[in-house]
Amino acid sequence: MRLPLIGAIVGVYALLFGLTLLAPIAVGLWYGEPQWRHFLWPMLGSIGLGALLWLGGRHQARTLGVADGYLVVALFWILLSLLGAWPLHLGFGLAPVDALFESTSGVTTTGATVISGLDTLPRALLFYRQQLQWFGGMGLIVLGLAVMPLLGIGGMQLYRAEAPGPLKEEKLTPRLTQTARTLWALYLGLTLACALAYWLAGMTPFDALCHSLSTVSTGGFSTHDASIGYFASPAVETVAVCFMLLAAINFAVHYAAWSSREPMRYLRDAETRAFLALVFGCVLLIGVVLRLEGGYEGLDESLRDALFEVVSVVTSTGFGTVDFAHWPDFLPILLIYISFIGGCGGSTAGGIKVLRVLLMVKQGLLEIRQQIHPHALLPLRLGGRSVDPRLARSVWGFFALYLTTFALLTLLMIHAGLAPLDAFSAVATSLNNLGPGLGEVATSFATVSDLGKLIAVGAMLLGRLEVLTILVILSPAFWRR
Amino acid sequence: MRLPLIGAIVGVYALLFGLTLLAPIAVGLWYGEPQWRHFLWPMLGSIGLGALLWLGGRHQARTLGVADGYLVVALFWILLSLLGAWPLHLGFGLAPVDALFESTSGVTTTGATVISGLDTLPRALLFYRQQLQWFGGMGLIVLGLAVMPLLGIGGMQLYRAEAPGPLKEEKLTPRLTQTARTLWALYLGLTLACALAYWLAGMTPFDALCHSLSTVSTGGFSTHDASIGYFASPAVETVAVCFMLLAAINFAVHYAAWSSREPMRYLRDAETRAFLALVFGCVLLIGVVLRLEGGYEGLDESLRDALFEVVSVVTSTGFGTVDFAHWPDFLPILLIYISFIGGCGGSTAGGIKVLRVLLMVKQGLLEIRQQIHPHALLPLRLGGRSVDPRLARSVWGFFALYLTTFALLTLLMIHAGLAPLDAFSAVATSLNNLGPGLGEVATSFATVSDLGKLIAVGAMLLGRLEVLTILVILSPAFWRR
Ligand SMILES: [K+]
Ligand SMILES: [K+]
Repeated sequence: MRLPLIGAIVGVYALLFGLTLLAPIAVGLWYGEPQWRHFLWPMLGSIGLGALLWLGGRHQARTLGVADGYLVVALFWILLSLLGAWPLHLGFGLAPVDALFESTSGVTTTGATVISGLDTLPRALLFYRQQLQWFGGMGLIVLGLAVMPLLGIGGMQLYRAEAPGPLKEEKLTPRLTQTARTLWALYLGLTLACALAYWLAGMTPFDALCHSLSTVSTGGFSTHDASIGYFASPAVETVAVCFMLLAAINFAVHYAAWSSREPMRYLRDAETRAFLALVFGCVLLIGVVLRLEGGYEGLDESLRDALFEVVSVVTSTGFGTVDFAHWPDFLPILLIYISFIGGCGGSTAGGIKVLRVLLMVKQGLLEIRQQIHPHALLPLRLGGRSVDPRLARSVWGFFALYLTTFALLTLLMIHAGLAPLDAFSAVATSLNNLGPGLGEVATSFATVSDLGKLIAVGAMLLGRLEVLTILVILSPAFWRR
Repeated sequence: MRLPLIGAIVGVYALLFGLTLLAPIAVGLWYGEPQWRHFLWPMLGSIGLGALLWLGGRHQARTLGVADGYLVVALFWILLSLLGAWPLHLGFGLAPVDALFESTSGVTTTGATVISGLDTLPRALLFYRQQLQWFGGMGLIVLGLAVMPLLGIGGMQLYRAEAPGPLKEEKLTPRLTQTARTLWALYLGLTLACALAYWLAGMTPFDALCHSLSTVSTGGFSTHDASIGYFASPAVETVAVCFMLLAAINFAVHYAAWSSREPMRYLRDAETRAFLALVFGCVLLIGVVLRLEGGYEGLDESLRDALFEVVSVVTSTGFGTVDFAHWPDFLPILLIYISFIGGCGGSTAGGIKVLRVLLMVKQGLLEIRQQIHPHALLPLRLGGRSVDPRLARSVWGFFALYLTTFALLTLLMIHAGLAPLDAFSAVATSLNNLGPGLGEVATSFATVSDLGKLIAVGAMLLGRLEVLTILVILSPAFWRR
């Protein structure tokens, strides 16, 4: 354990976080809102804290152990959630637990909220919430990866602990720094394109920018209580659907398709194909059920709402145009199920990830074939190639941990006072970084007890770090090293 | 496909089923109940149908293909459910769907019911329900295995498709017929010991016999609406707890312990150890929560109820002394979770089985260690030995299929009109062959729609055959052979 070095790295991130607060300050000044001052102390405090930590540890060895990376990442996300809550509590007067909930929900790109009356809030605050999601989306960590080497610290261990998706060893380019910069360039490019598209579709420049930040990060915060439903615009919905889908596809696939200028690369990727098939299969099923039982006049209208909500849920964005919690029949539960699948690995989406679910389903189907041919050697295949048994094993282990975490947190959430179904959906929506749930937590966590909010905070962090990072640092084996 | 041969084998089972109806007829005659006649036509019909099928196919080749076994077993269980419903519908006047539900719930040892007012029913009918569970428990199939060779038909393929538990290739004795006879001797011995113990604990001889049939089969039917609670006797509860636990331990472990006269053999088996640890861990947790929040006066009383309900649920028996659906806090949901684990493989219990869950949990913990030592080769171990990767893979495949089946059936059950939480528990209790659920299905399925009852019937059969057998015969690959 190299605690001072770990502190120094976390310090750099705190410093970077402090600098990002310049943006909401600028927004407040631009719109002449006195609340820009609420960000001043948090900015100076974060920068000061970061500088202190950095100065304390910078003379230490410059290499992290494999396992140290997990501690850095976990500490960083916890610190980020706390620093993010600072202006919300001391500046805007949210209760401590509420501020922590809102901040964690932001940086983990969950997008659940305890605030109502968004439409009347100062723009500096609205922008700040959106920005939390954007930085959380690709992860300040990856930003740090691009910066750290400038400071002389290698970061592969951070990438292992942080990057979402099962293929952690997969890098876009040979050099890690280059990878991080490429990821951020893609992320920034997508965000600018999204903002421009929203503006062309009729949003104000402010709304367009704000919603692009929470679309590309699959965060789901909005500047309006009615979320995307506020705009009542097919054009806006189309833009949202397109960019939510793009944000939930593996960024390595984006890179391959764009750098080679071959759009067919998307369809050559087995995970992307499965993801799109899942989306359109669910849209069709849900569109038909909505038409038959949801009081819709025509299939075109029911398909439109089905498309938006399925994409919003499967990408774990959580934008709403209608309230799926009040849809008929099994639809609310089906949408909660879908949120467990989530987007593709290596994207900003939450959930178990399509690739892992695909491998589990394939193993299930293989097991059926194995029964019919008990002595055959049937390899698990994906996209025409055999799957490395070690990757497959890690997927199954992950699956077991994810489900166990979900089951235990649901029991805790019931203990915190929620009805069983509400607790089930509250944990699912937090762990999968989705946002909206069912029943009591359909639109807001405001009425949930403090204990319940803290459990949700834990679930959001567990989900954002794909369970393993937190479980690793909680394991006795980690501290026994 | 050798359809006439398959028909002949299924015919033998139908004939055997017909012969078992002599027992409720004898009970009716003994107690002077005119309802003994209700079993006459079903008996003659089953025997006649069986004989016809047998005569039609007996001249065919005497060897079954690997996959044919699945068809025999699936057809047999479906036919058994239908034949079992015959006296209930035509004799006792239950609606067709209710009769099918009650019959399937019996033979699959689920123990959910649509009948109320048990205490006033004719004893012939009460005995018949208990007997359905007993034959279903070890499986008429295994009985058939002991008989078939006399008729010149080999049966290993049936054993593969039918025997519960992940270690299907594990045989007690080298010869299959011998294995089947040994299993039945153990089963019969346990049943007689259980009946004797119930009688000594104060039950009437009739109740003692009836409850031994549904205890050793982990079926859970009772002759009283209040189930085991009717007796309000610590002695009766103790007997029930002991024999439920025994019935949920792998019969191969029983055989090893008893044939070698070494009781420590039980604790040398990793699955049995995990099973007992699970039971006593849950009893302690639930006992404490009940004492704190359930209005109990002392820990001894709360532990007593916790012990009975945990054992009843984890062994998938479903007897009740109290109604756990109305326990406080997270306890009802925890008990539904426990029912997914179920008993040990190779026992009469339902659920996923302890061994499979243990392997999943171990793989999860291994994955955490793998993160800390990313380049180490960490084998999955159980009881000091490495687990065969093919066994491990089949466990993960099974897990995926079981969960997917559960998730899809829950959606269907909501479609059939149940509230989401009730649907969740109704499918869980059917698929895990438990019996009682939550809410609307806490004590009876009487108010569930016909569609809901049919979904439950499907779930019970899927659960009893451990999902795979049914999925195999539904797969295109099966029919393409
Ligand atoms: K989200
Ligand atoms: K049962």
